[in-house]
Amino acid sequence: MPQFTPPDPNYETRIRESFDQQSAMKTIGATIGEIKPGEVHINLPYSDHITQQDGFLHAGIVTTIVDSACGYAAYTLMPLGSRVLSVEFKVNLMSPAIGERFVAIGKVIKAGRTLTVCSGEVLAFQGDESKLVALMQATMIRVDEKISS
Amino acid sequence: MPQFTPPDPNYETRIRESFDQQSAMKTIGATIGEIKPGEVHINLPYSDHITQQDGFLHAGIVTTIVDSACGYAAYTLMPLGSRVLSVEFKVNLMSPAIGERFVAIGKVIKAGRTLTVCSGEVLAFQGDESKLVALMQATMIRVDEKISS
Amino acid sequence: MPQFTPPDPNYETRIRESFDQQSAMKTIGATIGEIKPGEVHINLPYSDHITQQDGFLHAGIVTTIVDSACGYAAYTLMPLGSRVLSVEFKVNLMSPAIGERFVAIGKVIKAGRTLTVCSGEVLAFQGDESKLVALMQATMIRVDEKISS
Amino acid sequence: MPQFTPPDPNYETRIRESFDQQSAMKTIGATIGEIKPGEVHINLPYSDHITQQDGFLHAGIVTTIVDSACGYAAYTLMPLGSRVLSVEFKVNLMSPAIGERFVAIGKVIKAGRTLTVCSGEVLAFQGDESKLVALMQATMIRVDEKISS
Repeated sequence: MPQFTPPDPNYETRIRESFDQQSAMKTIGATIGEIKPGEVHINLPYSDHITQQDGFLHAGIVTTIVDSACGYAAYTLMPLGSRVLSVEFKVNLMSPAIGERFVAIGKVIKAGRTLTVCSGEVLAFQGDESKLVALMQATMIRVDEKISS
Repeated sequence: MPQFTPPDPNYETRIRESFDQQSAMKTIGATIGEIKPGEVHINLPYSDHITQQDGFLHAGIVTTIVDSACGYAAYTLMPLGSRVLSVEFKVNLMSPAIGERFVAIGKVIKAGRTLTVCSGEVLAFQGDESKLVALMQATMIRVDEKISS
Repeated sequence: MPQFTPPDPNYETRIRESFDQQSAMKTIGATIGEIKPGEVHINLPYSDHITQQDGFLHAGIVTTIVDSACGYAAYTLMPLGSRVLSVEFKVNLMSPAIGERFVAIGKVIKAGRTLTVCSGEVLAFQGDESKLVALMQATMIRVDEKISS
Repeated sequence: MPQFTPPDPNYETRIRESFDQQSAMKTIGATIGEIKPGEVHINLPYSDHITQQDGFLHAGIVTTIVDSACGYAAYTLMPLGSRVLSVEFKVNLMSPAIGERFVAIGKVIKAGRTLTVCSGEVLAFQGDESKLVALMQATMIRVDEKISS
């Protein structure tokens, strides 16, 4: 894996504050976990209020946590005064999203000046056992904090 | 656009019943709109509880409605005894998702025996004006109702 | 469809000259067809030297023509002094790529200052009949001619 | 990484024979390298006849080798009597594809009965140094050898 040095040493604080402003995360019940250079984890317990018609976690909710994990992974490597937005992502849903809890892990693969490419995955846990339920490949963009996109 | 003939004439009832079981839709505030062969619309009013850190609709919530619109568009063309699951999708977020309300439109491009390819879009409305905020290209799979995937 | 006004009135000449420098196109036998604001066509006759193991056009060759069609569609709307590069694309292969000839059509969906989102398709022709064999959703980037990326 | 056991012990022979029938590979100058359960490498020397307008390897050619690497990685795990086809893939082009030679590596992430999800990458080599130039996430399908898709 590549080694990264965040240009803003306070990246973790900045990300936790940003995450607290993502009301969608509160609504679905997600919390932010580990944050390190180029990698962010998001945790989500299973709950009846975020499922599709078969009782699996809705694919869009799976996407919501792994998109944020990838976006914040990219954000760990952006300088002060930056915002991060998702340009696009692709998600494969590999197994029905069933389990007690889910962990989304976003990792930076290539950090450019403007665009950052990330890889993400979502694991479903039942007790100590985990299963890969989704795989994401995403492109994130850095925009200037003051300039609206 | 291709013309489609649903193998199950009661496809609309079946889809409305399935949609009512998607608790994620109630949680975010989405309702199902138009349903016709190979095309389904989902409506979502803007709300403070489904945003990301900048006050835009979270990209994962944008994905949630257009994934369901595409999945149900595919489902209009599946025979009785089928379930539909998302295999994978790719979403481009083209403009910040800001507006009074959003409409996701899913359309079938190619319906195969097992796999269906769909195209989806999300429009943001402010009064009568609309703007394209997201574009999806998705693969859906038909699975037998009795067999767990 | 959106209406576009190219900032460089000589966009067609500029694109034909650029296409002539794509040696990969000569190698596979592709030629450029219609060029208009936000839309470019590329033609490819079937040939034994560009197939996969079953005698279908190789998915990578299908991608080659529709990537160039999308890239040049984006390029029609870029100012003088720009180069265009593919950031990423996603392709669905919907039917085996068999036919006498193929046409790739790239269209701009949203042209931004830096990024352009395109939609592409590849049609296979047998006599007068055509079939959709591939669908692309792509992100292109404008880079300054002088600055190497 | 997951451990895989190929159901057909002669998978390597079967893949080398199939690769020899991919005329597109001869045309671009690619050869097949390492083949092991769930992983296949394809080698391509740089050549003037497979470039785009800036002298980089054409994104479609980059895709051609990594699509075949992923398809054959999936094929290592398919039983006798199967064919493999690409359902869809997404590719990020992360750096200009410049170098003396390129290696595409395809790996199986999840092998299902019908669908297999793969991850692929393309490395550009200049002497002993390598750089990641492309990342693929792909879905492959197993079809019965006798049944045309």
